[in-house]
Amino acid sequence: MKVVLAPNAFKDSVSAIRASQAMEKGVRAVLADAEIQRVPIADGGDGLTEIAFYAMGGEKKFHYVHNPVGKLIEATYCYFPEKRLAIIEMAEASGLRLLSACERNPMLTSTYGTGELIAAALDLGASRILVGLGGSATCDGGIGMAAALGMRFLDDQDQLLEPLGGNLQQIARIDAAGLDRRIPDVGFEAICDVSNPLLGENGAAAIYGPQKGAAPEEVEKLEQGLTNLARLVGKTFGHQVQDDDFGGAAGGLGMGLAAFLGTTLRPGIDVVLDLVEMDKSLENADLVFTGEGRLDGQTAFGKAPAGVAALAKTHDIPCFAIAGSCAENLSPLLEIGFSAVFSLCPGPIGLEEAISRSEDLLRTATEHAFRAFLAGRRS
Amino acid sequence: MKVVLAPNAFKDSVSAIRASQAMEKGVRAVLADAEIQRVPIADGGDGLTEIAFYAMGGEKKFHYVHNPVGKLIEATYCYFPEKRLAIIEMAEASGLRLLSACERNPMLTSTYGTGELIAAALDLGASRILVGLGGSATCDGGIGMAAALGMRFLDDQDQLLEPLGGNLQQIARIDAAGLDRRIPDVGFEAICDVSNPLLGENGAAAIYGPQKGAAPEEVEKLEQGLTNLARLVGKTFGHQVQDDDFGGAAGGLGMGLAAFLGTTLRPGIDVVLDLVEMDKSLENADLVFTGEGRLDGQTAFGKAPAGVAALAKTHDIPCFAIAGSCAENLSPLLEIGFSAVFSLCPGPIGLEEAISRSEDLLRTATEHAFRAFLAGRRS
Repeated sequence: MKVVLAPNAFKDSVSAIRASQAMEKGVRAVLADAEIQRVPIADGGDGLTEIAFYAMGGEKKFHYVHNPVGKLIEATYCYFPEKRLAIIEMAEASGLRLLSACERNPMLTSTYGTGELIAAALDLGASRILVGLGGSATCDGGIGMAAALGMRFLDDQDQLLEPLGGNLQQIARIDAAGLDRRIPDVGFEAICDVSNPLLGENGAAAIYGPQKGAAPEEVEKLEQGLTNLARLVGKTFGHQVQDDDFGGAAGGLGMGLAAFLGTTLRPGIDVVLDLVEMDKSLENADLVFTGEGRLDGQTAFGKAPAGVAALAKTHDIPCFAIAGSCAENLSPLLEIGFSAVFSLCPGPIGLEEAISRSEDLLRTATEHAFRAFLAGRRS
Repeated sequence: MKVVLAPNAFKDSVSAIRASQAMEKGVRAVLADAEIQRVPIADGGDGLTEIAFYAMGGEKKFHYVHNPVGKLIEATYCYFPEKRLAIIEMAEASGLRLLSACERNPMLTSTYGTGELIAAALDLGASRILVGLGGSATCDGGIGMAAALGMRFLDDQDQLLEPLGGNLQQIARIDAAGLDRRIPDVGFEAICDVSNPLLGENGAAAIYGPQKGAAPEEVEKLEQGLTNLARLVGKTFGHQVQDDDFGGAAGGLGMGLAAFLGTTLRPGIDVVLDLVEMDKSLENADLVFTGEGRLDGQTAFGKAPAGVAALAKTHDIPCFAIAGSCAENLSPLLEIGFSAVFSLCPGPIGLEEAISRSEDLLRTATEHAFRAFLAGRRS
C-alpha cells in the first residue's frame, strides 16, 4: 500500500512540511508499514523556498539586497549546484511583509532587490532560475529588477530615472545595452500565483494597488505608468503585454520578467508539481492525500491541491483532501479530480481552537479518511 | 451495493428518521441505484415511539392518564395488533417534560399514569408490553405504576397511602391481591437508558433526584423511602433489588416493574436492535452508517450507535459513524466496532450553525465518507 501525502500549507497554522508529517502519523496509526511518500507542495508564493530547502534538499543561500524602499536586508534563496538551478521568491527581497505600514506605497517601492537576487544566482553559475511571484510590495512593472541587472530607464531629457512605480510615467526610453550578458544563456521561469493581466480593471494597479498602500489617485497614476511602460516594451523589444497571461503578477513584475529577460510565465502549481517530481511519486501509488486551510470550488482553480487532484486523476489514483474549512458546495472540487473532501474540524469549534489543534486534528482526519478507504478495499 | 443507514436522533436538531433520510441523499448522490435500507434507531428513551410509529408501522394510540402530579392529560403509545405488542414510553405519562418548573418535586410525583397506559394496553389485548424508561419526573420506585394496576401500599395503621415518592418511607405492607389478573400472562420488558442501581450513591435518588427538583434533604428522604421499599419487596415477593442491573432507571420504576410485574430489564439498544430486526437488515450489507449528536468513548457504551457498530462487527461489515461532535480520543470507539468516525462540521462553525444546517451537513458528510469507501473498493 503506497500512500502519497502532498498537502499545501494550512495558512496561519501548519506549514506544508508539518502537515505532511501529521498526515503520516494518521496513516501509520492504521497501517504502520504503509509505504509513504511525503511530498509537501506550494502554490508558488509563500512556502516555496521552504519546500525547496527541506523537501528538495536545496542549499540555503544568503545575499544582501535592497528592500522595496532601498534599505539593505539579508534575503535567502535556494540553489541546487548539480542542477545549476536557483529558486528565488520575490517576496524575500521585494515583499510587502518587509515593510512597516507607513512604508507601504507602490509609488515609492521597487523590485530592485529581486534583480540583485537574480544577479547573485548568476554569480553562482545558475543556468536555470525560477522566480516565485506573489506577496509583492511593488507596482513597478519589473523596472527595478531590470535596473539591478543593468537596464536603464530614461526620461525625455535622457536623465536616468529611479526605478520606482511613481516614475513609470516619466520613462521615455529604455536602454538595454548594459544588461547582464549572461542572461540570454539562462532559462528563466516565473511562478505565478495570480492570473491578472498587466493593465485594466483586473490589472496590477487596480486590483492589488490598494492593498499595497496606493490611494485611489495613485492607483490611476500607476495604471498610466504601466500603460506607458507597456507601449515602450512593445516599441523597444516587440513585446506585446496583452499576450502575457500572468503579466499583472507581483505588480507587473510578471510582464517585466517576460519582456526584459525573456522569462516564461507559468502557473505556480504546474512548476511546483514539476519541481517536486510529483509524477514520479504517483507511480504505483494507491491513494493521495492533499489539503490546505480552505477549499472551495472558486479558489481551488490554480491552487496547489487542485493541481495534485488533477494529476492524480490522470493517473487514476483516488485523491482525498483534508481542509480546515470546506465550501458548502463541493461539486466543483469533485469535478477537478478530488475523490472525497473532509474537514479536520471534529465538531462545532472556533477558528482559534481549530488553528491551535490543527496538527492533531489533521492527523485524526487523515486517519479516519484512510480507515474509510481501507474498509472499502477490504470489503 | 447494499448500504444500511441506522442513525440515532441528533439531539436538539434532527430526528433519527430525518437523519436516515439525509444520509440516503448522501449515498444516492454518489450511487443513485444503491440498495439502501433505512433503519433509524433509538436508545429506548426519547424517539422510541416515533420509530415505532413511522419506521415499524405501529398504530398510534391515545389514552387519558394522570400526569406525575395528578392532572389528566392525553398520552400516546404504540400498538401492533398482529403481534399483540404495545410500546409505551413512561415519559409520555410520567415525564419531567410534562411539568412546569414549580411542579417538579419527586416527593410529590407518581408513575401512576404509566400504570394507566399499561392497563390501556392490556385492554387492547396486548400479550407483550415494552416500557421505555428515561426522562422521568418521579422517584417513587414504581409504586404509582403498580397502584394503577391494583396493588395497594399501606402504612402501619393499614391505611392506604397515596403512591408518591414522599410516602415510600411510610409503607409498612404491600397488598398485591388486587393486581390486574391479566398481568401474569403478559411478557413485560423494560427498555433502560441508564444502568444505575436502585440504592446508594449511584442510585435513583442520589444521581437523578436533584435534576427532578429534590432538595438535598429530600434526596435523603427518597433514599430512605426506596430502602424501605426494597426491604418490603424482598419480604413480599422475594425480590432482591441488588440483582437488578437497571433498578434505578426512571426513579426506581425499573425495580418496580421487575418486582411487581416480573418485568425483564434490558439495555435499550439491545431491545431496539431486536425490534427493528437489525440483524436481518445487516444480511448481505456492504456498509453501515450510524451516528448521533455527540460520540465519545465514555458515553458510547450502551448507546444506540455503539450497539449498531458492535452488531456490524459480528457480521464483519464496516460501520461508519457521523457525529455532530466527536471526542478527542476516538480509540474507544474503534474498539467498540466503529470502522471510521467523521464529524458533520465542514469547518470552524458554531453550535447554532451546526444545528441549523445539520441535515445538509449530514448529507454531505455521509456522501464523502461513502466516496472514500468506494475509492478503496475500486482500487
